[in-house]
Amino acid sequence: MLNIDNKIGSEMYSWAEDLFPICRSLTGPGVRETLNYLKKLIPELKIESVPSGYKAFDWTVPKEWSVVAAYIEDDKGNVVVDFKDNNLHLVGYSHSIDKWVELDELDDHLFSLPEQPTAIPYVTSYYDLNWGFCITDILRKQLKEGKYHVVIDSKLEDGVLNYGELIIPGETDREILLSTYICHPSMANNELSGPVVTTALAKWLMGQMNRKYTYRILFVPETIGSIVYLSKHLEHLKKKVDAGLVVTCVGDDRDYSFLPSRLGSTLIDRVSLSVMSSFIGEFKKYSFLDRGSDERQFCSPGVDLPVASIMRTKYGIYPEYHTSLDDLSLISPAGLSGGYSLIKKVIQCLELNNTYISKVFCEPQLGKRNLYPRLSTKSKADYVEAEIILNVLAYCDGQTDLLRISEILKKSIFELKDVVNILIDNALIEEL
Amino acid sequence: MLNIDNKIGSEMYSWAEDLFPICRSLTGPGVRETLNYLKKLIPELKIESVPSGYKAFDWTVPKEWSVVAAYIEDDKGNVVVDFKDNNLHLVGYSHSIDKWVELDELDDHLFSLPEQPTAIPYVTSYYDLNWGFCITDILRKQLKEGKYHVVIDSKLEDGVLNYGELIIPGETDREILLSTYICHPSMANNELSGPVVTTALAKWLMGQMNRKYTYRILFVPETIGSIVYLSKHLEHLKKKVDAGLVVTCVGDDRDYSFLPSRLGSTLIDRVSLSVMSSFIGEFKKYSFLDRGSDERQFCSPGVDLPVASIMRTKYGIYPEYHTSLDDLSLISPAGLSGGYSLIKKVIQCLELNNTYISKVFCEPQLGKRNLYPRLSTKSKADYVEAEIILNVLAYCDGQTDLLRISEILKKSIFELKDVVNILIDNALIEEL
Amino acid sequence: MLNIDNKIGSEMYSWAEDLFPICRSLTGPGVRETLNYLKKLIPELKIESVPSGYKAFDWTVPKEWSVVAAYIEDDKGNVVVDFKDNNLHLVGYSHSIDKWVELDELDDHLFSLPEQPTAIPYVTSYYDLNWGFCITDILRKQLKEGKYHVVIDSKLEDGVLNYGELIIPGETDREILLSTYICHPSMANNELSGPVVTTALAKWLMGQMNRKYTYRILFVPETIGSIVYLSKHLEHLKKKVDAGLVVTCVGDDRDYSFLPSRLGSTLIDRVSLSVMSSFIGEFKKYSFLDRGSDERQFCSPGVDLPVASIMRTKYGIYPEYHTSLDDLSLISPAGLSGGYSLIKKVIQCLELNNTYISKVFCEPQLGKRNLYPRLSTKSKADYVEAEIILNVLAYCDGQTDLLRISEILKKSIFELKDVVNILIDNALIEEL
Repeated sequence: MLNIDNKIGSEMYSWAEDLFPICRSLTGPGVRETLNYLKKLIPELKIESVPSGYKAFDWTVPKEWSVVAAYIEDDKGNVVVDFKDNNLHLVGYSHSIDKWVELDELDDHLFSLPEQPTAIPYVTSYYDLNWGFCITDILRKQLKEGKYHVVIDSKLEDGVLNYGELIIPGETDREILLSTYICHPSMANNELSGPVVTTALAKWLMGQMNRKYTYRILFVPETIGSIVYLSKHLEHLKKKVDAGLVVTCVGDDRDYSFLPSRLGSTLIDRVSLSVMSSFIGEFKKYSFLDRGSDERQFCSPGVDLPVASIMRTKYGIYPEYHTSLDDLSLISPAGLSGGYSLIKKVIQCLELNNTYISKVFCEPQLGKRNLYPRLSTKSKADYVEAEIILNVLAYCDGQTDLLRISEILKKSIFELKDVVNILIDNALIEEL
Repeated sequence: MLNIDNKIGSEMYSWAEDLFPICRSLTGPGVRETLNYLKKLIPELKIESVPSGYKAFDWTVPKEWSVVAAYIEDDKGNVVVDFKDNNLHLVGYSHSIDKWVELDELDDHLFSLPEQPTAIPYVTSYYDLNWGFCITDILRKQLKEGKYHVVIDSKLEDGVLNYGELIIPGETDREILLSTYICHPSMANNELSGPVVTTALAKWLMGQMNRKYTYRILFVPETIGSIVYLSKHLEHLKKKVDAGLVVTCVGDDRDYSFLPSRLGSTLIDRVSLSVMSSFIGEFKKYSFLDRGSDERQFCSPGVDLPVASIMRTKYGIYPEYHTSLDDLSLISPAGLSGGYSLIKKVIQCLELNNTYISKVFCEPQLGKRNLYPRLSTKSKADYVEAEIILNVLAYCDGQTDLLRISEILKKSIFELKDVVNILIDNALIEEL
Repeated sequence: MLNIDNKIGSEMYSWAEDLFPICRSLTGPGVRETLNYLKKLIPELKIESVPSGYKAFDWTVPKEWSVVAAYIEDDKGNVVVDFKDNNLHLVGYSHSIDKWVELDELDDHLFSLPEQPTAIPYVTSYYDLNWGFCITDILRKQLKEGKYHVVIDSKLEDGVLNYGELIIPGETDREILLSTYICHPSMANNELSGPVVTTALAKWLMGQMNRKYTYRILFVPETIGSIVYLSKHLEHLKKKVDAGLVVTCVGDDRDYSFLPSRLGSTLIDRVSLSVMSSFIGEFKKYSFLDRGSDERQFCSPGVDLPVASIMRTKYGIYPEYHTSLDDLSLISPAGLSGGYSLIKKVIQCLELNNTYISKVFCEPQLGKRNLYPRLSTKSKADYVEAEIILNVLAYCDGQTDLLRISEILKKSIFELKDVVNILIDNALIEEL
C-alpha cells in the first residue's frame, strides 16, 4: 500500500487554497501570478515567455487576455451575474462589450448545464472572437423577459504567453519529463492538483542525493503551452527523454487511473503499470484514445516522446469536471498525497531500474561471502535469502532490466534493491 | 451488413444458366466454349494456350480430350446411361471403347454413391488412361446380370490447354490477383459460381476510376492451369502481387467462409478477416490445412504468393459437392450477390488501405480549419467529429496502415475514408 | 504412451543396487569407485581429474575427503551410531575427531528430522571445516544425559576431483549434452537414477547407426564438477551445443516433470515439451526459478547453454528427498525405464528434427509417383495419405523445422518420419 503523508498533503492543499481564486487563462496576469507563487516555493523555477504571434508548428500564440470587470445588470440595476463572484462566470477570452440587450439576444451568450442546475460551467473561446457568461441553470431559468445591461471590460492585446521550466540535473543527461498545466481558472482537481503535486515532487527531487536522471519539469498552459515548448526543444527532448508523465487530476480521493503512451509499451508504461499493480489495489486503465491533456502533443507522430498519465479520477469522467463544482471540496490532503506518493514511487522505480551484468561465469561461491548456509541441509527456510540472490543473479545477463527481473521473480523492484546492493558490494554484478 | 444487389445477382445467375450445360474438362472444346462466352462479357479477356506436352515445373500438360458420344445399352438395345443426358455420366478423360461386357466387368467401371442414391458423382482420371461411367446408386442397383454394350467415342490427342487472362491496369504496378477455375462439367457452386462472380467483379473494376492497384484476373483449369500460369509468370508475380484471392464456391446461400494463406497474416488475410468481421455476422474460419483449390499452388513454398480464399459454403463441406446435386438449384441470385458483394468490399478495403504520415508536429489547430468546436464546452457530443479526426491523425505515423488504425479505433475502414479525405484536403497528412 | 522396457529397467536397477552402498562425496575414493564401475559398463568412458586447489571461475576445488571409520559410543561402550551401518550418518566432509563430550555438546553436532522421525537426513559441509552425525529423530530422543565418545577417522588431504566424460561422435559436430552427478552417498532417486539412466542411454546411443549429433555425456560431482568442466570447455560448448539435459531424479514411479532452460524457448525446451505432451498424459511443468541442479551452472548468464531438465519426481518435491528414505525401494525398474524411455524419445526427436526445403515449385505431381489416387473421387478416405504428404510438403520452406510442422499438423514428429522419407526418396525435398 502507498504511504499517505498527511503533512505533505496539507501543505499541497494550502498551496491550492492560495492559488484557487486567481483567474488563470492561456495568457495574462493570472498565469504570471500563479507562476510567481510557485517560484516562491521553488526559487530555481525559470519563468519563460514567448510573444503573441509566435509561430509554433501549426499554431500561433494568441493575444494576451486580461479582465478588469464583467457583469450583467437588469433594467432595475440589479446585478444578475458578476465575474467578481466567480471567475468561471466569464467565457474565457471574451472581448469587451457594453450594451443593453433583450433576454433573447443575451440568451445566445449564456451557458448553463440543465442536468447540473447548481453548477457554473467552464467555457472558453480562445481562438475565436466572442463573448459570453456562464451561469447556473437555476439562475438562467429565473431570468425574466426584459432588457439587460451587459458589461465586459477586458483586454486582448499583444503580450506574451508564459510558462515555467525547472531543470534538476542528475548524474546522467538522460531525462525524465514531468508536465502539468496552469491555464484554468478556479478549479481544483482539473487544474490545481497538477501544479501543487508537481511542485511537491520537484521539492522532494531537489532534496534527493544520487539522482541518476535529470528532471525536466514544466508548468505550461495546456495545448498551446506544450506545443510552444516542443517547438523550441523538440530535437533535445527526442534525444534525451527516457520517460515522462503528464500530471493532472491528482487531487481527489476516488480512483487511481493510468493512461498509456501512444506506443503503449515504453519504459514509463511498464514502470507505471508495475508500480500501480504493486501498490494500488484496483485502478482504472484507460486507452490512449481516451487521452485529453498534453500527451496529445507529447505522443503525436513525429514527436513520439514516451509520455503517459497517472491520475486520480480522470478528467471527463467525474461529474464535477469543468464546472464550478470542481472546487476545493473535491480535493483533499489525502487525495493529493495519494497522487504525490504514487508518482514518487514511479520515479523511484525509474531510478532503481538499471540493467546489470554478472561479472562471473556460473554461480559464484556464495558460501565464502557468508551469503549461503554453511551446512547443506534439507530445510528450505535456510535458503530463502540465498535463493533470491541467485535468482536475481541468474537474470543479470546485460539484457534483462531490473523491472523485468522483478516481474519474473514476482517481487517489486523495491524488494530487490537490497539484493542488488549486496551483489554490487560483493563485486558480483555491474551496472551497464 | 452486406448490400445484396439482386440485379447483379440475376445477371450472374443467367450467365451460370448459359454455361451450365457445357462439358468442361481440363482441356478441350468445353473450356474454349466457356472462355469464348466470358470474352463476350469482357472483350478485353485474352484467351491463351499452351500445347499438350508443355512442361510446367513438375507437371506436363496432358492431351486434349473431347467427347462425341458415350452410352451404355443393354442386350435389348435399351439405353441405360447416356452422356447426352448429363455430362457427369462420363468419367473425365475416358478413352474410346466399343465393347460388349458382362455386368461384372462393367461394374468395375461404374461409380455411384450409396449414401446419396439419387446423385451422379463427379469422377475424373486425368493422368491415367481409363474409362468409366458415373450413375446414381438407384440405377446401379437396378442393373441386371447380362451383357452390356459400352460405347465411348472420345478423342485424346495433342492439342492445347486454354486459360483466360485479364489485366486491368491501375495507377500503380502493384497487383491484386483473382483466380478462378473453368474445368468442371455441369456443376454450379463448385464451378460456375467462381467464373461468373469473377466476371462480374472484373466488369465492376473496369468501370471504377482511380484504381490504385493493377488487377490480374485468371480463368484457369484447376491445378494444372495455375501451375502452367505460375511457371510462365512466377518472377513477375513474386515481385508485384500484394494480395490475391481464389474465387470458388461463391454462389449458394448458406455459409460465408474464409481460408487463410499459408503464412496466415499477410495483407489479404488481415483485410479479409477485418471486412468479414465488419460485414458478416458469423462466418467459418478454416485452416490452411483445409485448402483444396489453387491456393495449394499459389501458397506453395518458393511460390509464396499472399493468396487466400473467400467462399460461401466451402468445397468438400456441403453434401452436394462433386455430384449432380450441385446444380443450378443450389445457387441463387442472392447467393451469388453475397459472394460478389463480399469480395468487392475486400477489394475496396485493399484500395483504401494506405499508410499516411502526418505533415505537422503535434496536433494541428483544427479550429482555424473549422474542424473543431469554436467554444470549448463540457459537451462530449460537440467533439465527436474532432475526436475521430484527431484519433486518425494520432496514428498517421508512416508505419500504421489505415486497416490497423481502423482496428485500433474499432471502426471499419469505410467509416474512416471521409476523415482521411478531410485530412488530405487540409494538407495535414500525406500518403506514403 | 511410452514403451516401458522392463529388461533395460531391471538392468539399470541392478547397477543401482551395486552402486548404492558406496560412500560418494564431492571427491574421494567413493567417486572413483563409482566411475570405475560405470567404465566397466562403458569402456569408452574417460575418467578425468583436477587437483585440489584448482581454480574454476569463482570456485576452488576442495581437498579430497576419505573416511576410515566414524561412530559414537556411550560411556558403557555401546555403539550408538556407526557410519558402517549407513554412510548418511556422517556429515559430508567431517574432519577427524576423538573426544569424550557431554550430550549437550554432542547435540550441537547432531542432525535429525522431527517431522520424519525414522529418516536419517543428508547433510554436508563441503566448504567449511566442521563435523557432525545425522541420525533418526527417534534415536536422538532416546539419547540420555552422559558422556559420549565421538570418533571420526577421516582424511582431508590434497588430492583430486574426478569426473567422467564420454564423447560419442556423430555425423556432424553439433552436440547434445547430457549431464548427471555422482556425488551423493547412498541415495537412490536423487543420485543413482541419474547415472544409471545416463549409462543406459549412452549404451543405446553407441549402438545407433547414423547419429546426426555428437553426444557429450558427463558424470560430474554436482556444482563444483560442472563448474570445473565449464571452466575447461566453455568456448567449445558455447559453439557446439545445440541442446542439453541434466539427468536427475529419473527413477521413481510417480510424476514426470519438466524444468525449462533459463531462456525457456530453446530447441530442448520445444522438443521436450512436444515429446512429453505426445507421450505422457500429465506431467509437471516447473519454472526455471525452481531449478536446483547443474542447470544452475549451464544456464547462468555468460554460459547460457540450452540445457533443461527432464525428471520423474523432482528433487525437493518428494518427502524422502535428501534422507535415508530415498533408498532402493523408492526407485523401480519400471520407474527407471520410464525416465530412460522418455529421454530416449527426446533424443530421437532431436535427431529427426531437421529443416527441409521443397525442390519443386508448386505441388509436385504425386500421381505419377503412385502417391495420389488414380481416380479423383469424392471420397476423403482415398486422400488421407496424399493429404499428409502434401501438408508436410507445404511447410518444407527451408524455415519451418519438422517439429514445428508436427505442431501445425497436430501429429507427432514420429508419425511424420515415414512421410519425410517418402519425400526424400522421391527427390521432392532436401535437408538444409
